[in-house]
Amino acid sequence: MAPSLAIACQAATERPARALAPTSRVAAVCSEVQASRIGHKLDLPSVLKTPFKIVHGPPSSSAGNPAEIAKLFPHLFGQPSASLVPSDATSAVSKQNLKIGVVLSGGQAPGGHNVITGIFDYLQEHAKGSTLYGFRGGPAGIMKCKYTELTSDYIHPYRNQGGFDMICSGRDKIETPEQFKQAEETALKLDLDGLVVIGGDDSNTNAGLLAENFRSKNLKTRVIGCPKTIDGDLKCKEVPVSFGFDTACKIYAEMIGNVMVDARSSGKYYHFVRLMGRAASHITLECALQTHPNITIIGEEVAMKKLTLKNVTDYIVDVICKRSELGYNYGVILIPEGLIDFVPEVQQLIAELNEILAHETVDEGGLWKNKLKPQSLQLFEFLPQAIQEQLMLERDPHGNVQVARIETEKMLIQMVEVELEKRKQENRYKGGFQGQSHFFGYEGRCGFPSNFDSTYCYALGYAAAALLHCGKTGLIASVGNLGAPVSDWTVGGTALTSLMDVERRHGKFKPVIKKAMVELEGAPFKRFASMREEWAVKNRYISPGPIQFVGPTSHAINHTLLLELGAQARTRMIQ
Amino acid sequence: MAPSLAIACQAATERPARALAPTSRVAAVCSEVQASRIGHKLDLPSVLKTPFKIVHGPPSSSAGNPAEIAKLFPHLFGQPSASLVPSDATSAVSKQNLKIGVVLSGGQAPGGHNVITGIFDYLQEHAKGSTLYGFRGGPAGIMKCKYTELTSDYIHPYRNQGGFDMICSGRDKIETPEQFKQAEETALKLDLDGLVVIGGDDSNTNAGLLAENFRSKNLKTRVIGCPKTIDGDLKCKEVPVSFGFDTACKIYAEMIGNVMVDARSSGKYYHFVRLMGRAASHITLECALQTHPNITIIGEEVAMKKLTLKNVTDYIVDVICKRSELGYNYGVILIPEGLIDFVPEVQQLIAELNEILAHETVDEGGLWKNKLKPQSLQLFEFLPQAIQEQLMLERDPHGNVQVARIETEKMLIQMVEVELEKRKQENRYKGGFQGQSHFFGYEGRCGFPSNFDSTYCYALGYAAAALLHCGKTGLIASVGNLGAPVSDWTVGGTALTSLMDVERRHGKFKPVIKKAMVELEGAPFKRFASMREEWAVKNRYISPGPIQFVGPTSHAINHTLLLELGAQARTRMIQ
Repeated sequence: MAPSLAIACQAATERPARALAPTSRVAAVCSEVQASRIGHKLDLPSVLKTPFKIVHGPPSSSAGNPAEIAKLFPHLFGQPSASLVPSDATSAVSKQNLKIGVVLSGGQAPGGHNVITGIFDYLQEHAKGSTLYGFRGGPAGIMKCKYTELTSDYIHPYRNQGGFDMICSGRDKIETPEQFKQAEETALKLDLDGLVVIGGDDSNTNAGLLAENFRSKNLKTRVIGCPKTIDGDLKCKEVPVSFGFDTACKIYAEMIGNVMVDARSSGKYYHFVRLMGRAASHITLECALQTHPNITIIGEEVAMKKLTLKNVTDYIVDVICKRSELGYNYGVILIPEGLIDFVPEVQQLIAELNEILAHETVDEGGLWKNKLKPQSLQLFEFLPQAIQEQLMLERDPHGNVQVARIETEKMLIQMVEVELEKRKQENRYKGGFQGQSHFFGYEGRCGFPSNFDSTYCYALGYAAAALLHCGKTGLIASVGNLGAPVSDWTVGGTALTSLMDVERRHGKFKPVIKKAMVELEGAPFKRFASMREEWAVKNRYISPGPIQFVGPTSHAINHTLLLELGAQARTRMIQ
Repeated sequence: MAPSLAIACQAATERPARALAPTSRVAAVCSEVQASRIGHKLDLPSVLKTPFKIVHGPPSSSAGNPAEIAKLFPHLFGQPSASLVPSDATSAVSKQNLKIGVVLSGGQAPGGHNVITGIFDYLQEHAKGSTLYGFRGGPAGIMKCKYTELTSDYIHPYRNQGGFDMICSGRDKIETPEQFKQAEETALKLDLDGLVVIGGDDSNTNAGLLAENFRSKNLKTRVIGCPKTIDGDLKCKEVPVSFGFDTACKIYAEMIGNVMVDARSSGKYYHFVRLMGRAASHITLECALQTHPNITIIGEEVAMKKLTLKNVTDYIVDVICKRSELGYNYGVILIPEGLIDFVPEVQQLIAELNEILAHETVDEGGLWKNKLKPQSLQLFEFLPQAIQEQLMLERDPHGNVQVARIETEKMLIQMVEVELEKRKQENRYKGGFQGQSHFFGYEGRCGFPSNFDSTYCYALGYAAAALLHCGKTGLIASVGNLGAPVSDWTVGGTALTSLMDVERRHGKFKPVIKKAMVELEGAPFKRFASMREEWAVKNRYISPGPIQFVGPTSHAINHTLLLELGAQARTRMIQ
């Protein structure tokens, strides 16, 4: 074991002082893993290693309401998808220098830096002399024309590293006519040939609108989106997975696996683990497939079956009682962060509370509660007192109840305790129960990208740059065939408009990319559903361990993707 | 990327069904990392690969009150330490078969399974035909004679795996004459030549008492302890580190590093991270040395300087204000789980509350508060309301305030918010503050042991078995020279009585192994203290990443151990 406190970071020494931005990784030292990951060489899909050309698919439509989408995107609607294929001509793509901007939008996801290095390396390889601008702090950086010119030295220390700190991110949106104007000014000022927007569903919708707007103003600036979100809810047939999902789930699954072994070793705790992912439960489902917990709540199933909190509590308590009879007074339970949002009765209660609290004074005696509808009152009384108080006291600046602040896992522990106590009184349960709550969230957003996400993101960056280089706009970069070796991955772009539907807001149609929810008929959920009864009463725990970057265990891909790919392959075979 | 959902666990197929215990790893599948770790080959110190003999040091004393320890351990007091050295005789140790028991005591720590496999493999190698019994569920397993005979097949799937689930653990103590009698009966019934007690300070004190008791009753059963605890507070000159500390700190540091990158990427959160370790702050200090957070609170320093909660809050707020002026409205703050126990004024308040709440009725108007001494009242009023309520409402079965339930990180966030708001009113602070709380605890106790802990524990197990084989009792297994290559590690045992002092309890002297606290004059704290001002205002974050088992980054050792070894080496050079 060679003693080593901290090794000189190669990056820091190689990098001239002038290139250092205020927020950048200027520390004189970095960890061994940081240093070793910087030097990790990434494979590329074969088509990106040879001269290539673009072939087009048939004209596209939209995910819904094509007539409205066509009206909102008169220049872009109907674009075919683009695929890169090898070309025997060496000059399939012009050698012209490009000026490209890139922006990170929204919450962090492991691999964002690799999209940027992919863009950079593509430009170095195929359009030497090009310039890459990194807009700082998200879309606000575009509007304020706040950017850093990304050089080889500058980006070097971020290769295969987690986080978005190379240029940071932000949650601003480019929405109003003034904001679009600001974006145009930046595009003109920097003479941008293209812009890559790395973001989730909202950001990619925005990318589409920007592309349409630039085109309508006859600006040369083209826009390509990249699918980012650990939540895994931005995907479609041609975009099999959003980046970051693989890494984040592996980090959460590592922790869950550890907690499972702990539960089995001490034999006395029920661990309630809340997992990030508000809108969809993909993360929770994936973590369940990786670790085999005793109980997993999937929000989409709760919504589909119109379950109440009482139903969910009873389900958990039933399993706890059954396990207790088998001699197991411990277990692990996974809960999606957004569970409450999936429970119809909670939505109803929140709506009534917002209304009442806006207009009534809340009397100590509780007379205000009479304003609640009977079912909502019943639910309110069912909630633990701490949650009742939280609902009453913690309001956002608009006076609304802050549902997101509710620690669902703690709420469930309290409700389970009450129900177990009741069953104990009725002599239906004799076990002991100690709940431990966990929330795994921020730990997973900025981890080192797995080998899969590192390679996938690098290919996405290459793809985005290649699409811009070929004059494409209004597409989302897509890399497919991900179950095959990297050399066989497909590369191209899909019309952003083809992912869109419209929503009516303030009397107007707004384009939206619909979030991909967990499909109860999809292969991942069906696999889970076929196993959960066994996992509930038998202990089939699996401990995935920490992400490995070297060796045979470093090539795993998440189960959700593999199962979906398998299902697709089977569908193809049947057809 | 080879698709692989879950691979057949080699262990499960190799293992006859009859060997499967109810709580054991019977799943038909395990993760790739689980499978690959099972096959990981461990190096041994050279002395354990050759014929060896034992050499003895000078007679030992105790850590304090030698006269009292001598009275409590009339048969064992003064034993010299034992060192294994190579022997040219091939028969330095008898070939006799042994019957050995092993027990896991107290909270989990990564590497416990490897101590057991080390004992097992030693017996296979040096005393073929021996029997190893694993007492189930901790010391209760000894008293109830509840055990599993550990066979090659049985232990195989637990090689290099985290957790204590091979035989599980428990927190019972062997204390009363009846309990000692039960232990004697088990020793006689199983005809035990030896017992290895794997545990922390309390368990090793117990191991010493058992050894003394067996000796005094002329039983042949000898007892050897092994130093276990993630808290790192069981160590002395000859036992440089307790096992599990290395792995747990690396797991926590991985998460802290991720959260740091997240903080820098989004630029808007202060992450307050509470870390396991109630009695001593070694874990917090080690994580700080690995990751360079902006603020780290070390309990021992708080106690030494007699800081109040207001002092701690002000220190945090001062740094936050300074950082805000530099443009950083984010940061990472590490807090030891036991912080509150280190604050003298809190201890005083708790004592007064316990007294008052036992005898007074608590009136709504708050008149009861007049019973508090002025300083305690001032502290009580300074605490956030939620914490006040927690102190009043949540009592243990003895009616005492449950200090351990207080979420220190949330309490500090609230106190910091109040103070920042005050400074904002006074125009001394203009920044934005959003606190995020984390508790990293259970995730670290059962992770896969790092290569260091895997190898160290295996050597400890070998050492314990060798000491028993040589007829030793009342020693704690010690493996030293840990900064050197494994082949040069030293192996031996140290008299448990030499670690002991006495405490007066219920009018009697009780032997105790004193917890090793963070020494403010020690090399690890001094290194930290020399850097913390720079870390506070500049961002020197280091992201250690996930533990790697393969490749150049897999050989790191924790900083605390290295710094202490370095300091020792320097001391030796000076002498």
